[in-house]
Amino acid sequence: MAREAATHADIPFGPEDTPWQKTFSRLRVVGGRPYGTAPSSDPRTAYLEVPEVPHHKVQLPATGLDEEQYAEAEALFRRHIDTQTRNFAGYQVNSALDYEKRLGHYLNRHLNNVGDPYQSSSYTLNSKVLERAVLDYFASLWHAKWPHDPEDPESYWGYVLTMGSSEGNLYGLWNARDYLSGKPLRAQHREPGRAALGHAPRGDGPHALHPVAFFSEDTHYSLTKAVRALDIDTFHALGSTRYPDDNPLGPGTPWPREVPSTEDGAIDIDRLAVLVRFFASRGYPILVSLNYGSTFKGAYDDVEAVSRTVHDICAEYGLDSRRVHHGDGEDAGHDERSGFWLHVDAALGAGYVPYLEMARDAGLVEQAPPAFDFRLPDVHSLTMSGHKWMGTPWACGVFMTRTGLQMAPPKASEYIGATDTTFAGSRNGFSSLLMWDYLARHSYDDLARLAAECDGLAAYTHERLLALQEQLGDDLWVARSPQSLSIRFRRPRADIVHRYSLASETVHADGTARSYVHLYAMRHLTRQRVDELVGELRQPGAFPPDPPAGTGTAGA
Amino acid sequence: MAREAATHADIPFGPEDTPWQKTFSRLRVVGGRPYGTAPSSDPRTAYLEVPEVPHHKVQLPATGLDEEQYAEAEALFRRHIDTQTRNFAGYQVNSALDYEKRLGHYLNRHLNNVGDPYQSSSYTLNSKVLERAVLDYFASLWHAKWPHDPEDPESYWGYVLTMGSSEGNLYGLWNARDYLSGKPLRAQHREPGRAALGHAPRGDGPHALHPVAFFSEDTHYSLTKAVRALDIDTFHALGSTRYPDDNPLGPGTPWPREVPSTEDGAIDIDRLAVLVRFFASRGYPILVSLNYGSTFKGAYDDVEAVSRTVHDICAEYGLDSRRVHHGDGEDAGHDERSGFWLHVDAALGAGYVPYLEMARDAGLVEQAPPAFDFRLPDVHSLTMSGHKWMGTPWACGVFMTRTGLQMAPPKASEYIGATDTTFAGSRNGFSSLLMWDYLARHSYDDLARLAAECDGLAAYTHERLLALQEQLGDDLWVARSPQSLSIRFRRPRADIVHRYSLASETVHADGTARSYVHLYAMRHLTRQRVDELVGELRQPGAFPPDPPAGTGTAGA
Repeated sequence: MAREAATHADIPFGPEDTPWQKTFSRLRVVGGRPYGTAPSSDPRTAYLEVPEVPHHKVQLPATGLDEEQYAEAEALFRRHIDTQTRNFAGYQVNSALDYEKRLGHYLNRHLNNVGDPYQSSSYTLNSKVLERAVLDYFASLWHAKWPHDPEDPESYWGYVLTMGSSEGNLYGLWNARDYLSGKPLRAQHREPGRAALGHAPRGDGPHALHPVAFFSEDTHYSLTKAVRALDIDTFHALGSTRYPDDNPLGPGTPWPREVPSTEDGAIDIDRLAVLVRFFASRGYPILVSLNYGSTFKGAYDDVEAVSRTVHDICAEYGLDSRRVHHGDGEDAGHDERSGFWLHVDAALGAGYVPYLEMARDAGLVEQAPPAFDFRLPDVHSLTMSGHKWMGTPWACGVFMTRTGLQMAPPKASEYIGATDTTFAGSRNGFSSLLMWDYLARHSYDDLARLAAECDGLAAYTHERLLALQEQLGDDLWVARSPQSLSIRFRRPRADIVHRYSLASETVHADGTARSYVHLYAMRHLTRQRVDELVGELRQPGAFPPDPPAGTGTAGA
Repeated sequence: MAREAATHADIPFGPEDTPWQKTFSRLRVVGGRPYGTAPSSDPRTAYLEVPEVPHHKVQLPATGLDEEQYAEAEALFRRHIDTQTRNFAGYQVNSALDYEKRLGHYLNRHLNNVGDPYQSSSYTLNSKVLERAVLDYFASLWHAKWPHDPEDPESYWGYVLTMGSSEGNLYGLWNARDYLSGKPLRAQHREPGRAALGHAPRGDGPHALHPVAFFSEDTHYSLTKAVRALDIDTFHALGSTRYPDDNPLGPGTPWPREVPSTEDGAIDIDRLAVLVRFFASRGYPILVSLNYGSTFKGAYDDVEAVSRTVHDICAEYGLDSRRVHHGDGEDAGHDERSGFWLHVDAALGAGYVPYLEMARDAGLVEQAPPAFDFRLPDVHSLTMSGHKWMGTPWACGVFMTRTGLQMAPPKASEYIGATDTTFAGSRNGFSSLLMWDYLARHSYDDLARLAAECDGLAAYTHERLLALQEQLGDDLWVARSPQSLSIRFRRPRADIVHRYSLASETVHADGTARSYVHLYAMRHLTRQRVDELVGELRQPGAFPPDPPAGTGTAGA
């Protein structure tokens, strides 16, 4: 790398505008020169401006910051975040948090739940004992068989996620890919590592071990990333390359990239059925990923109906249950497994809807979405985010499947004293502590009441925006999908979007692009804040006549 | 799922041993029955016992825990973790943490650095402004060109990891796989999403877009998982299936699973060269992942020598720089890129060695390992863990590459107002805050001195264990690789392993299995604690005559 050429060692750096090379003292100078590379240009102009937190105030010189500099920088950042938290309204994230007093202590402890949650570890600084309590709690809530039992294929297995549901989706799809490709199951290989390369599995027909993925156009963008990272063919990729003229939804027209959704944002089951049949009839195993609380519209796919539909179609083509053969001749073996996999991305829904069901059964609300959980025998895996309904200071969540569906892990890690069954190696142990804390302090009663309140707040917001629309005499595209916590409407002026952290999405309908935002009726939102926002939206100029599609907003 | 059959609704549950079904009250009962599934067996007996934290004390009933129950459970857990932290000696993790007072506030805030660190986001509750300061800091420290500039392929790009280096390895290998397979570069596709399925890339020769991975037997187990999840062929997999009789390290003998290491734990460069040549000469692009501070022995691969060797071999076969063609006919295009990729897993080393270099140049220590960073033009990507050298309450880290090597992201996410260039969707924003805080409060001087102290402590520990070995007249296999912070020796009795959280590993040498543990001279360790451990090891019976290989230790 051209180290001298393009550098500018005198570029002002840090809170005092010190020339970069002057921020080095004795120990930091090597042979008369500062250690490391000098900036090539001024980061303050290279990077986005966050007006509330000027970049040079938080730059990190080789000297570090002195006490005063640190205090000023941290205060700027804190004020900015506190302000944004107060007005936060746009995402399916709960920002009413209360952990500092009880759990601050653990900021001075390292907690790492490395490896399988049910196995001991010589790495003793972990919170697995709390993680197991959290997992059992959700196994019961989601109607799974519990406790986890490695010998019982119907019992649940799961773990607390470090990244949130995008990790749960990655892990679920990885498991699905290998399951449908005939890779060895964990139950068959108690001694991990060696099995994977033993014998190529065989199924019936040329495509028997070639899974094809289906998900709707309302699916979170992390699914697109997951199928690419995992190199899983979507029906679009496979259709476009192998069957370019045979799109069953419109022969001769291009294959859609995703399964179409209804107006409400739920997957269109009839069209899904047509697509699934196309591939199932050709012997491809079927991987369907569903949404339960979709990102933008907050819509719930009808998991029960999809699961019935997919099961029945697969049964017609022998994909409901089939044999996978391992090896030839004497050491040949086989196992029975399904030829389809249903994964549910219930990032928001799995945390919220069980309590809404309780609220419905107690007469607090009228309706709840259809079931999504292990009551349905064909649900293979699901994932939930901890930061969405519950609320946690960072993303986390839970992945859950049935023990019998686990794949053989890549390698035993003697080093950590536990099998490497999870996606991450090191796993955030503080996240299990946060969820444990939350669940210990909230009863089913509390949460059912909160669910009813949020549902009521969503209805209130919806009504207020409908009233505004009527008052302004202008179509603001106000809409709420059934039981959704998201209320969507026309994108207002950029400063309003920024103040309330409203999420944007362009929806293409009838050949035109519509720029939407939405509001999420999460627990931290109040009627007062909704009224304030509606008040701002009522002012002249709140809705620019021609909302620019797809442009970002200011700030970071 | 057989919901009634195998359940036992009266199994005692929670801190008061309440029958499970009695933990439900009005709102929690649906049609006279508790919501959710009852346990099938008693989790207390199904799960591992952690004597210090009895499982029933932390179980989560539908009522939650009352104040007293919560206090008791949390106190048990806290005492256990505090004790284990005090004695913690076995892993490359720093447990001397000091964040509570300054950063406790942020446990009540949600920080999510969703999407690219250099792009704004309508999701304003993020710490990207601090993340960019942290990334610039490391870019300078690792001799990269900075600030990041999307138009400058030589400038760095990176992001703060949510999972730690296992995420950095996954992301680096994913990027490498797609780069070597000829997928579109980010620079070529400013409008993401559409490009991926456009035209199949072409290279020269049948294997030109079929990467093959190499890593040593001392590599962290997460690499095995990464290549499996990403479906990357290792030289072992490819060699065993396509060239079963041609193992160039021993014609006719089975291919080794990993590249052999030296006694010290560094990759054996001569043998790596033989293996790389075998595949490079057949036209396969080459993916090498190196260790810089290996997990068990703390060894540093000679990145500089490997990089020269791999470059030269690849140059012989036209793989140093080559054309990848996109499309046919009129819209055909091509780009120039290298036919190999060097990733460095510097989870520990990238945090520690730069300061050790400074200490060496200031005369505080005698030696530092060879360079590993962007001073080497052939290093494509590297990853570091934040919890290892620095110390953070949970795993985190940094991934870094050159901007010109970035692949086109799967999809633009308008929803978050930033491109989805990172592995996780939601990213832990508190981690950037932690690293920023640490770097603001420690100057290069501080860190160079700390590095020298740790190096000295490792030398001290090594000497003390050698002296013990001599005194006991027994071979304890005491060893320290050059500049390593790890000192390994024969595995002692299980209770000692547990008390000090010593990591175990079985090393196969000369046909026998040796059960080792190691100690890590991290910042929290003191000479006094080392003396204590050595004192315990001196007692009769500290080393069982026939240490059981590969058995786990008690506790969680």
